[in-house]
Amino acid sequence: MPIPTAPKAGTFEGGCAFCDGAFVALADAKISLFDWGFTRSDATYDVASCWKGAFFRLGDHMDRFFASLDRLRLSIPYSRAELREILHGCVRAGGLQDAYVAMVCTRGVPPKGARDPRLATNRFYAYALPFVWIAPPDKQAAGIDLHVSERVRIAPESVDPRVKNYHWIDLVQSLFDAYDRGRDTSCVVDAQGHIAEGPGFNVFMVKDGVVHTADRGVLEGVSRRTVIELCQRLAIPLTIAPLPAATFRQADEVFLTSTGGGVLPVARLDGVPLPQFPGPISKRLQDAYWALHDEPAYRDPVDYGR
Amino acid sequence: MPIPTAPKAGTFEGGCAFCDGAFVALADAKISLFDWGFTRSDATYDVASCWKGAFFRLGDHMDRFFASLDRLRLSIPYSRAELREILHGCVRAGGLQDAYVAMVCTRGVPPKGARDPRLATNRFYAYALPFVWIAPPDKQAAGIDLHVSERVRIAPESVDPRVKNYHWIDLVQSLFDAYDRGRDTSCVVDAQGHIAEGPGFNVFMVKDGVVHTADRGVLEGVSRRTVIELCQRLAIPLTIAPLPAATFRQADEVFLTSTGGGVLPVARLDGVPLPQFPGPISKRLQDAYWALHDEPAYRDPVDYGR
Repeated sequence: MPIPTAPKAGTFEGGCAFCDGAFVALADAKISLFDWGFTRSDATYDVASCWKGAFFRLGDHMDRFFASLDRLRLSIPYSRAELREILHGCVRAGGLQDAYVAMVCTRGVPPKGARDPRLATNRFYAYALPFVWIAPPDKQAAGIDLHVSERVRIAPESVDPRVKNYHWIDLVQSLFDAYDRGRDTSCVVDAQGHIAEGPGFNVFMVKDGVVHTADRGVLEGVSRRTVIELCQRLAIPLTIAPLPAATFRQADEVFLTSTGGGVLPVARLDGVPLPQFPGPISKRLQDAYWALHDEPAYRDPVDYGR
Repeated sequence: MPIPTAPKAGTFEGGCAFCDGAFVALADAKISLFDWGFTRSDATYDVASCWKGAFFRLGDHMDRFFASLDRLRLSIPYSRAELREILHGCVRAGGLQDAYVAMVCTRGVPPKGARDPRLATNRFYAYALPFVWIAPPDKQAAGIDLHVSERVRIAPESVDPRVKNYHWIDLVQSLFDAYDRGRDTSCVVDAQGHIAEGPGFNVFMVKDGVVHTADRGVLEGVSRRTVIELCQRLAIPLTIAPLPAATFRQADEVFLTSTGGGVLPVARLDGVPLPQFPGPISKRLQDAYWALHDEPAYRDPVDYGR
């Protein structure tokens, strides 16, 4: 489907969305109350980041987005090259250097009275906002206090966690618990009591020099994958296996990974200081994560001149 | 919060919505792409029906809606009397006699960059559409063919099913399976293989004169409750307990309950005809369901004259 020419840089200063085939201001970014993307949460999405004027691993985010679309039997009327154009257009029109860039596909609205999802025309949305941190920089400096919730993440048997989805009631409720206790964010467990994930991030621990993270029931985050690759590159031992919450509480170091901040060292678990903050391995991976942003293979610079 | 005067009857012929404090046409019923009600499915809702110009059990639907709000720590700026006014206003302005009437509350949009749900102003939406049947009347007459899916409904440990919610990816995927197989709709199971619910309905079976339905892990539907009360009134034996899928397949009769059609007898399970369709007990309960619509205690007539 043809894409309209993106507005020139900064037309929608502070952020720009792409809705129903047009670039619009954020205030005009809306969806129908009757879209199954809302009334059934029948949608998938992905979030890439743009840092200092260049997308980071955009191809990987687009790959995952197209894989999620296939798994939910959704489709968008744009090719991969067109999708890239739209996302670049949102960042450029929003006049952003550091951005949070989302691509979203919803089932759409089936014909009047019909309940057959095959009859709906899928809808595509995208937007670029100023970069969003999972925890704001002042919190990161002071030290993130992570609440380890006993709430159980929606099982992979019900909702495939490899499909990035908006089924977050469990995660949002765990956030309320965290804030009620004076913590900064939260992570939840699976039905067997293994650490799963938090609202928008994967969770890692370091114990006796080995990095650990969950093997299943979690989003296969691009930042998670980046850390896994960095461990290999830096020859840091890594175990990808179920991680019992009790083991997790004995960690030497803990860090979170997210497009919203990369590698984020954690200072406390439920108020109890971790032995090391920021831990040496967390710090090394964090530095390596940001250094990767300068490598051409991972960068896709935005052309603001047009 | 003051409610605007509802437009006169039929102003928005065919349906009316109430968004951000105003009555609007359905085409203008939209929510922000950034509302957590969409990006986290952090929302609850309820659906009442209006039949021949009168709401059915509206008080019970409003009770459940307010209970759901409390459980998710959401609130609306309207009293119960005001909520009723808004819903009546949507039906009146939509010029509808038989209507599907929804009330919805979303978390809203937290301040820029914040991820604390406590900082968001919750949003309220409502709308009235022409009555929606879970299965259209021609399908009901031909006989509904129900696909008994092996997909597992999101567990109550993750999302409280008593809170009517939009976490439906599992249900929508089971619908795709059903349509792929030429069935009309579907129901899913819990992790132990017990019948749970379908997309928008509870499931009942009749075996040797006894009515059976699930006791947990399902929405506590108002239509389900109506059937339970009717069984008591009509002295029909009833068992509310876990219902293994294998037992379910041996049913004499099966029916679905939903605000979208009341009691709906099923003709076939995965293409295999049930011994009785429409079964005598299903039929008796269906007739009693509609007869209840004439009892003043269950009726709340819409005043179209204003």
